[in-house]
Amino acid sequence: MSADKPAPSKLKARQPRGFVDRGPADVAATERMLAVIRESFSRYGFDPVETPFVEYTDALGKFLPDQDRPNEGVFSFQDDDEQWLSLRYDLTAPLARYVAENYDALPKPYRSYRAGYVFRNEKPGPGRFRQFMQFDADIVGAGSVAADAEICMLAADTMDALGLKGQYVVKVNNRKVLDGVMEAIGLGGEENAGRRLTVLRAIDKLDKFGPEGVRLLLGEGRKDESGDFTKGAGLEAEQISGLLEFINQAEQAAAAMRTAALNGDIFNNEIDQSYFVLKEGGTFYDSELCQDGHQELEAIRGMLRKAGFGMDRVIIDPSVVRGLEYYTGPVYEVELTFEVPNDQGQVVRFGSVAGGGRYDGLVGRFRPEPVPATGFSIGVSRLYTALKAVKSPIVDARNELPLVVVTAMDNKSPEFMPGYQAMVSVLRQAKDDNGKPLCRADLYLGSSGFNAQMKYADRRGAVCAVIQGSSERDAGTVVIKDLILGAELAAASRDVKDSAEHKAKQAEAQFSVPVEGLVAGVKTVLARHS
Amino acid sequence: MSADKPAPSKLKARQPRGFVDRGPADVAATERMLAVIRESFSRYGFDPVETPFVEYTDALGKFLPDQDRPNEGVFSFQDDDEQWLSLRYDLTAPLARYVAENYDALPKPYRSYRAGYVFRNEKPGPGRFRQFMQFDADIVGAGSVAADAEICMLAADTMDALGLKGQYVVKVNNRKVLDGVMEAIGLGGEENAGRRLTVLRAIDKLDKFGPEGVRLLLGEGRKDESGDFTKGAGLEAEQISGLLEFINQAEQAAAAMRTAALNGDIFNNEIDQSYFVLKEGGTFYDSELCQDGHQELEAIRGMLRKAGFGMDRVIIDPSVVRGLEYYTGPVYEVELTFEVPNDQGQVVRFGSVAGGGRYDGLVGRFRPEPVPATGFSIGVSRLYTALKAVKSPIVDARNELPLVVVTAMDNKSPEFMPGYQAMVSVLRQAKDDNGKPLCRADLYLGSSGFNAQMKYADRRGAVCAVIQGSSERDAGTVVIKDLILGAELAAASRDVKDSAEHKAKQAEAQFSVPVEGLVAGVKTVLARHS
Repeated sequence: MSADKPAPSKLKARQPRGFVDRGPADVAATERMLAVIRESFSRYGFDPVETPFVEYTDALGKFLPDQDRPNEGVFSFQDDDEQWLSLRYDLTAPLARYVAENYDALPKPYRSYRAGYVFRNEKPGPGRFRQFMQFDADIVGAGSVAADAEICMLAADTMDALGLKGQYVVKVNNRKVLDGVMEAIGLGGEENAGRRLTVLRAIDKLDKFGPEGVRLLLGEGRKDESGDFTKGAGLEAEQISGLLEFINQAEQAAAAMRTAALNGDIFNNEIDQSYFVLKEGGTFYDSELCQDGHQELEAIRGMLRKAGFGMDRVIIDPSVVRGLEYYTGPVYEVELTFEVPNDQGQVVRFGSVAGGGRYDGLVGRFRPEPVPATGFSIGVSRLYTALKAVKSPIVDARNELPLVVVTAMDNKSPEFMPGYQAMVSVLRQAKDDNGKPLCRADLYLGSSGFNAQMKYADRRGAVCAVIQGSSERDAGTVVIKDLILGAELAAASRDVKDSAEHKAKQAEAQFSVPVEGLVAGVKTVLARHS
Repeated sequence: MSADKPAPSKLKARQPRGFVDRGPADVAATERMLAVIRESFSRYGFDPVETPFVEYTDALGKFLPDQDRPNEGVFSFQDDDEQWLSLRYDLTAPLARYVAENYDALPKPYRSYRAGYVFRNEKPGPGRFRQFMQFDADIVGAGSVAADAEICMLAADTMDALGLKGQYVVKVNNRKVLDGVMEAIGLGGEENAGRRLTVLRAIDKLDKFGPEGVRLLLGEGRKDESGDFTKGAGLEAEQISGLLEFINQAEQAAAAMRTAALNGDIFNNEIDQSYFVLKEGGTFYDSELCQDGHQELEAIRGMLRKAGFGMDRVIIDPSVVRGLEYYTGPVYEVELTFEVPNDQGQVVRFGSVAGGGRYDGLVGRFRPEPVPATGFSIGVSRLYTALKAVKSPIVDARNELPLVVVTAMDNKSPEFMPGYQAMVSVLRQAKDDNGKPLCRADLYLGSSGFNAQMKYADRRGAVCAVIQGSSERDAGTVVIKDLILGAELAAASRDVKDSAEHKAKQAEAQFSVPVEGLVAGVKTVLARHS
């Protein structure tokens, strides 16, 4: 079989939909971003913990939104003993299992953080993957709203640490408020639990579909552009207008807070309290759940303001819904407020990069005693996209050590390889003037000729190349070629190329040194471009 | 329902066999260990790449050893479109898919590294998990043995970077040598491919079962302690003795090299070449495969020695087998040579922590052209166990920032929480004299009383606690309690406790400062124990 005619039986190299590879810039940048978050969480006294990717399906439970597919959004498979296993779909359900299993051994309240990939067996789309990373922090065993306030402070301080000062807002709500509102419009009681969930998810789509879309989702249903129909909650017109009135009021309050914050008026108590929907005589005034929820929000607000977190960083916003089913009290969402173009080319706020809330029932699924818990989760890929959008230095690829490529001119003659290997070895050990590693060093190991080797050095982003042919070897020298300066000179016009200045620069861009001067020569070139 | 009578329907918090959680010390230590490896790989010019956990089953192929179970050692499940997906069982098969898919865009030879969990659907046992981490480095597109030599140097330098100087040896072999040996005893040809694999796996068990166990596995088979029977290769007595003679010779050579290395005689060419089994008139002298394999090993050896890697760091050992089916040429194994007690209480060498080899056929499964490749993989959990065994500072938990716990004496009165929150906030922002973060700070958020809070601080490993009750609040002060000194003093005898010196120390262990002196007071305590 010749190379021109590939065997028809060759496999196609391909990936399952919704799974992606990540190259060097992404990996290194994400690493730096995770380090900043880790440092911030650690400063708050949170300890790392890691649970495995695979759990018993029943231990994870079923709390995912949009469970419109038969396998309910989770990748599952049977173990040898017929028990069902699943890939984790978030980091909260496994934490609940972990805490329940190690309850007596853990200090309580138990503060922990963990980062890792989670998996959703969902229809992938733009920016929507079946494997993505989350970074969570949780406090288990603290029922007080002080724990919720602490999570909000942690979220805000972490955004500051990431360099997003002034570009985010942490929005806080309470499930009880929304539950009270729904009760007030006749959706209370166990028998309406499923319907309440549909309503919550409809409200959650406000950013995506606007008020008109939400109105459809609260009523008969909504057809999207692809023609797919989403069945609605089937509410009466009066119920729908009650809900929309509530949402409208919450949105107006949030807008007023934002304006005040932009004017530096970050502790204006009157505006700060305008989220309060329990006006005497108003629709929801009599709801005990609403009152209860508001009381908790007021306590959280009080702590935040006294701790110096103003409306520029954290606000109460009763329209916030989190999609997961297990939340029982306060919920939070970190929204990035700067604007970016969306898929349709419109300019929109970047939106949510993190969220969470109180989930007092989750650990209790395994334990005889109630175990309150609260926490939040950062969507790492979303955050990474955001940091790239604001050109954050954290995700800037130039933070890496420079690369030097040692070429192998005589790679057809194996006896010369040890000489080249010695050069990379020296460069790998070399230190800069501060005693830090000078560079990364790579030896060309392919079989191609000199031109291909120079192309290789370019493609790898090397700052300089080291060259030794037979004449240099005989003379005990090496040639050092500055690839950045070289590229600049090559791009110059004919006139410039004839100038004396250009010729002087050419001598700088490629010069010869004794073998012992290799490190010094490389240092000279690296210093030009640092 | 009372808390005394748990509902019978409560779930049991449990984990599938072979999956484990990892606590704070493990997570932090592994993180530091990975950073050392990453830095070492990067210095060699390797770039990070990350592939997802899930791949098409056929893209991964079937190259696992010990495929004695129906699902062949891999966790698999069907996608919506009926195609089979699997969790990756190593990081090499996904790399092959990645390179094949992005072939034209990648610089070649392509150097990359990646760390991540892999999954094996195998019977778990002590130290044998169904999820474990690997850290790989590979060079794809370089057919020259210089690439294999470079991987061996990288492996050795990485062990040095991990502080294991003098405690490891990189052992190199070549599949061709073993294949030649098997050919010479009549196991050549396509029809014996399966049998050759069984033989290789039997030889691979030498460390585990000794020569007698290997003899059984080469013949009829072997029954283990649990009564499980492993079917053997069914070789004739003469074939078996031929193989064992070969292995014995290789082992004797390795022992001689080790002795020479221990005596500092690391470049003794005669001993270095004693691995050479092709003595004129010997059993395997006529095998072309053997000769070919030896020639490659000689070339690798030459490069290593010229680059200054002596027998103390890398040796040629023809008895080395790697279990994976896809290797086609040189194979390597990093063995830690220090001794530890094994499960049976015997003192044994720690053994293998990394391995790899050349796999020239793997990328070619997807591509029309042949694509040579070589690389190695570190078993991260094994390495972690090893570093703990030698008490490496890399995995020492004391590298963390110290923790300070602010207690909440008046946690029944929510109005005092903001005051405590302000204290932790100040401590989280505090810097030491070098401008580095001073400490981690944790506010007690539970509802228990003072004694439980002090126990909490102990359990979390806090160095000091900050206390403010109503009298301190009225006086504008806080009490700082040195928990380490306090524990020492509490353990003193009655006589000592009455001494003046003891009382002076007690004053040091617990003292009061004005609220503004909080950071300075904490610094004093931390300085005592740094």
